[in-house]
Parts: sequence; structure tokens; C-alpha cells
Amino acid sequence: MSQTNAFGAPAADRPLHSLAIERRVPGPRDVSIEILFCGVCHSDLHTARGEWGQRTWPIVPGHEIVGRVSAVGEEVERFAVGDLAGVGCMVDSCRTCASCGEGLEQYCENGATFTYGSVEKETGRMTAGGYSSAIVVDQDFVLRISPDVDLAATAPLLCAGITTYSPLRHWNVGPDSKVGVVGLGGLGHVGVKIAAAIGAAVTLFTTSPGKADDARALGASEVVVSTDAARMKAARGTLDLIVDTVAAPHDLDPYLRSLRRDGSLVLLGAPPAPHPSPAVFALTASRRSLAGSNIGGIAETQEMLDFCAEHGVTAEVEMIAMEQIDEAYDRMLASEVKYRFVIDIGSMPSAV
Amino acid sequence: MSQTNAFGAPAADRPLHSLAIERRVPGPRDVSIEILFCGVCHSDLHTARGEWGQRTWPIVPGHEIVGRVSAVGEEVERFAVGDLAGVGCMVDSCRTCASCGEGLEQYCENGATFTYGSVEKETGRMTAGGYSSAIVVDQDFVLRISPDVDLAATAPLLCAGITTYSPLRHWNVGPDSKVGVVGLGGLGHVGVKIAAAIGAAVTLFTTSPGKADDARALGASEVVVSTDAARMKAARGTLDLIVDTVAAPHDLDPYLRSLRRDGSLVLLGAPPAPHPSPAVFALTASRRSLAGSNIGGIAETQEMLDFCAEHGVTAEVEMIAMEQIDEAYDRMLASEVKYRFVIDIGSMPSAV
Repeated sequence: MSQTNAFGAPAADRPLHSLAIERRVPGPRDVSIEILFCGVCHSDLHTARGEWGQRTWPIVPGHEIVGRVSAVGEEVERFAVGDLAGVGCMVDSCRTCASCGEGLEQYCENGATFTYGSVEKETGRMTAGGYSSAIVVDQDFVLRISPDVDLAATAPLLCAGITTYSPLRHWNVGPDSKVGVVGLGGLGHVGVKIAAAIGAAVTLFTTSPGKADDARALGASEVVVSTDAARMKAARGTLDLIVDTVAAPHDLDPYLRSLRRDGSLVLLGAPPAPHPSPAVFALTASRRSLAGSNIGGIAETQEMLDFCAEHGVTAEVEMIAMEQIDEAYDRMLASEVKYRFVIDIGSMPSAV
Repeated sequence: MSQTNAFGAPAADRPLHSLAIERRVPGPRDVSIEILFCGVCHSDLHTARGEWGQRTWPIVPGHEIVGRVSAVGEEVERFAVGDLAGVGCMVDSCRTCASCGEGLEQYCENGATFTYGSVEKETGRMTAGGYSSAIVVDQDFVLRISPDVDLAATAPLLCAGITTYSPLRHWNVGPDSKVGVVGLGGLGHVGVKIAAAIGAAVTLFTTSPGKADDARALGASEVVVSTDAARMKAARGTLDLIVDTVAAPHDLDPYLRSLRRDGSLVLLGAPPAPHPSPAVFALTASRRSLAGSNIGGIAETQEMLDFCAEHGVTAEVEMIAMEQIDEAYDRMLASEVKYRFVIDIGSMPSAV
């Protein structure tokens, strides 16, 4: 075991602070990664503040990790020291269930091991995420990162990117598709970019008229302010798929009605209270579906990273130092970031 | 125009009574049908009692119609006098939109013409349904009925049959599928029979322990009483598709959780008040969908009738005389029918 500098929440009601954590002794299939950048996801905030019910503290968040390989175990074939590497929301899964067999580790029937807040099989300790200087991960859960990309702006793809890419691919979005994205935040702005890179026509739904120019610059061909009843009515029956990135409870019916026959509205956010119940008639009238999707599998995450590298897709980021994280959480809650905070892990204070 | 004996509701708060209606003069593509039997659907009741907001009276319900061809127009090629014939929920559609082009007239983008309570294009009058001695329908919306079937027990297939058959087919149920059916009523009991005839393993969910034997006799391999928390928990993650025939508001989450990854819960009933809002996590955790489906297209209805004739699938029916209809409605509301009332149209009183 090795002591590693990290930043975490000592309890639900306490700000994050500098602490030392222990990383496991790397095994023969493990990749040791010096972390360079870590994106800041809403999940980090909810978990650090105890809103999702976790009971084991401290919590070291962070699952949008980009870094450089510092050591590899003797059985590691896919990475060498000095390579760039990424780690997303998962660091392990059962690897034996049907979902794992299909490369859908996020739906592991025995429960995936998440990058933070899960029990690490090797040690029985809680996993600790990317708000730290280094991490040790089995090679099967480490992603390759192209040396040609902007590393800091690529970090958020490890969660925000795959969470939007996976449903776009699963529901067969292509160049002829008309896609809606609800919400222009961390997920939504990447979703617009990816859908546009796939070649789809993208309609961005937002409650903020001020985001229209940004949305168009990011690749949206249409922007609909969702409080504009006339525009919402005009959108009825026009879209093949909508990915809804808004985690606050909201009326789903106008989005369901914006779908064509057989279209799906895919929820990506988990609201703290239920959405208003969807109108059954909005589903039955055109055989529509209300679906949900959760991040994506490891192979698909690699596919997404390669796709984004090829198409020049990265997140729009604002760099912060590690000690700015609580302030960043508050600004994130106030939607005062365009569009993702990324921590420069080089700014990590020493606690070891 | 010809005067025809019928039975209808003069207003929302009045019992149905005998009346004379006018059928249009048959055109060159029309089939005139002497009605023999008409099934009694919950929609009939809701419409006759004004619960779905209709404003034009009287209402002559009935869209599970089986009869015999009494005349054909000069351009009619598919039917001859003396043939058996069926009419379901629709008698026309725009025939030009994308949905009509795909044989999905039930999702006609310009609005299908329903068998009762719609505006008849040819005359501008309201359509009148199968609680009548005769009907005139364009040949494209008339179904062929095999001479080998029980005609009265086949009538309910025109709505209850196609409403369950269509989602089973659309969501690719086959002999290897595990299918759930929620509710053992008019729709549900036919859904169990059809799914079993397809070869699927069928789990019937019901609140009534007393229906277990019936469900098994109809083809269910498992019966789960939905108030039994332990049985519901054991069902988690086991089913590929669930068709939910219950029109009363109820908790959808236990059924969503009974689905495997990528499974769909398909709502077929329209509740008078919303269902409790489905848990987003039940959708995202296994990429499940909550969908809706509405009857089926004409070609698919013919396919269903042929399938049911081949596999000996009919509804379980209780015959009534026309003048028993209000009593039948009350018994239907009290779930006191096993499992579908069918009107012997030969009992129609004369009003002409």
C-alpha cells in the first residue's frame, strides 16, 4: 500500500479537505496512474454531501480521470509506462453475469464497483476517486487516451461523454436522425456536441434563453426555450430520440409529445424527487417510450473516446485548483459554470 | 341512406336505449355487413357515459364486430356477399401519412376515423358502432373471419385481441420470451392466451388470488399475486416484456423492476387519473422503458385473426341480449365478467 494525496469529504456536512489515502499494492493486472486532471460531476457533489445515502466516510469523489501510466503489473499488455490513460465511473464488475458478458458492465447484475464509494474487492476498503494524485486500476477498466487531445477537456468525457454517447448509440442515432437534448449543462453540452458529430440534427431544449447562442455554437441546429408554449407545440412529433439531462423534477409530457411515433425520451439524470407522472396518452398515442440509461460499458467508453478524438469533441471546461472545489460545487448548483469544472490535480496540496 | 336498428346512449347520464340510425349509401368500395355479434369493451362504457369528453350525442358504441357481408360495391374485390367479416376500432384513416403508409393506421398523423364517435368523411356525421344491425365500411378496413371459428368468441379479438397482440409482436416476443401480463380482464385474458400461443412463458400478475386457476388454464405458467411482496421481489429482473392492461392508477415500479435489462413495460389502458410517477432509478438501472401501445394496424389485425384462428385462440365470453347492456356495464365495472360480454345482435329490438 502507498500513501497518496487526496481531497475528500470527512462527513456529509463538512467541506472537502486535504487528506492522505492508501492505494492498494498494484497486482499483476493493475495499471498505476498518475492523475493529471479530474472533471467535476454533479454525482461528486451529491455523494460528498451525503444526499445519496452513503454511510462510509471520508468520501473522495471524482470519476472523470485522465492521467499518465506510472507503473504496470507483469500481466498488463495494453498499457506501458508513460501512456496516457483514463478512468471513468467504474473500476471493476463481476465479469461473469450476462451484462458483463455483453460489455455492459454498468448494468452488472451483481453490482459494478464504482470508482468511489464502492467496496474494493482486493482490499475490502471503500474505493476512492480522482480527487487524488494517483489511482490503481485493473487494466480492463482503464481507457486509452489519444496523445492528440486536450487532456483537461477530455476528462469530462469519461462520465458526461459516455452518459450521452451510450443512449445515442443504443437508440441508433445516425446522420438522418433528429435528436433532442434537454438541458445545456455538463451532460447536455457534451450531448449536443456528440449528437452533432454523429451527424444528427440537434434540437436543444432549455429554460434559459441566454443559452441559445452557446447551443448553436456547440452544434445545435434548433434551440427551443421550453417555457415558450408555441415553440413547444411546433416541436410536437418531430424528434426520433430525446436525451434528458435535467436532474430536477420537471414535466416530461412536452418532451414525450415532441417525439415521433416509436420515439424514446431517455432520462439520464436522477432527480431528488419524482418527476410529475407522465401522461399515459402521450405514450400510447404514438407508441412512445420513456426510458432510462446509466453511463455506458467499458468497450463503449473506449469507442466514445476514440470517436471524440477523431471528431475533435471535448467538453467546454473551466479549470480550478483542488482547493476551489467547494466553491465550484456551489457554483455548479447555481448553474454558474460553462460547462464543466476540471480540477488541475497538479494543484493538490500535500497531506502525506 | 338506410334506417338501421341500433342501441345507443342519448346523453352521458342516460341509459342506452333502442334507436334508429342512418347508415350511408354504400359506395363502390364499401362492404355492407349484417352484424351478428359485438363485444363489449370498457371504451364503450367510458364513451357512452361521457367520461372521455365527447360532446355529440347519441353515441352508438361497439368496435368488436363480427357479421356477414350483405352487399358489396362494384370495386370491392376482397369480399363477396355471404362472407364472414369483422370490423374493429377503425373504419378509415387519412391513408397518406407515414404511419398509414406503414400499415399503422392507429397512429394516423391526421387522425384515424374510429368506429364510433368520429366524423365520417363521406357524410360529415358521427360514426356509429356495432351496437346495431348493420354497418357500411370501406373494404380496406374490413377484416376476413375464418368460417371455422366461434364467431361470438372471436368478436372481442377485434379490440382486446389486437391491443395485446400488437405490442407482443412489436417488441419481438417469441418462443424464448418471458412475458408478463398485468390484469386478468377483457384484455389480459386474451393477452395470456396469445402470448402462450406464440410460445412465450407467461407470468400473470393479478390482485385477485382467486384468478390463479383461471390464469393457468388460459396458458399462464406463473401467477403472481401483486400484493405478495415476497413473490414480487422474486420476480425482479426476470421478464423481457410486460403488457399492463390495468386502466386504474397503480404503482408501476414493481413491474418495471420485474423486467430484465432493456425490457419494456407497455401500458395498454388509459387510467382516469395518472399512475404514481415511475421511479427514474427503475428505468436507468437496467435501461428499461415504460411504453404505451394503442390497438394495432389493419394488416396486423388480419394477421392476428389468422393467427388466432390457426391456434384456436378466442375470448372467454358471456353472451347477453342487447337490452342487458346497462346491466353488463355495471357488472364490467365490478369485474363480474369472465371475461368479455358479447352482444347477440339478433336480440336487437326494432326501432325503425
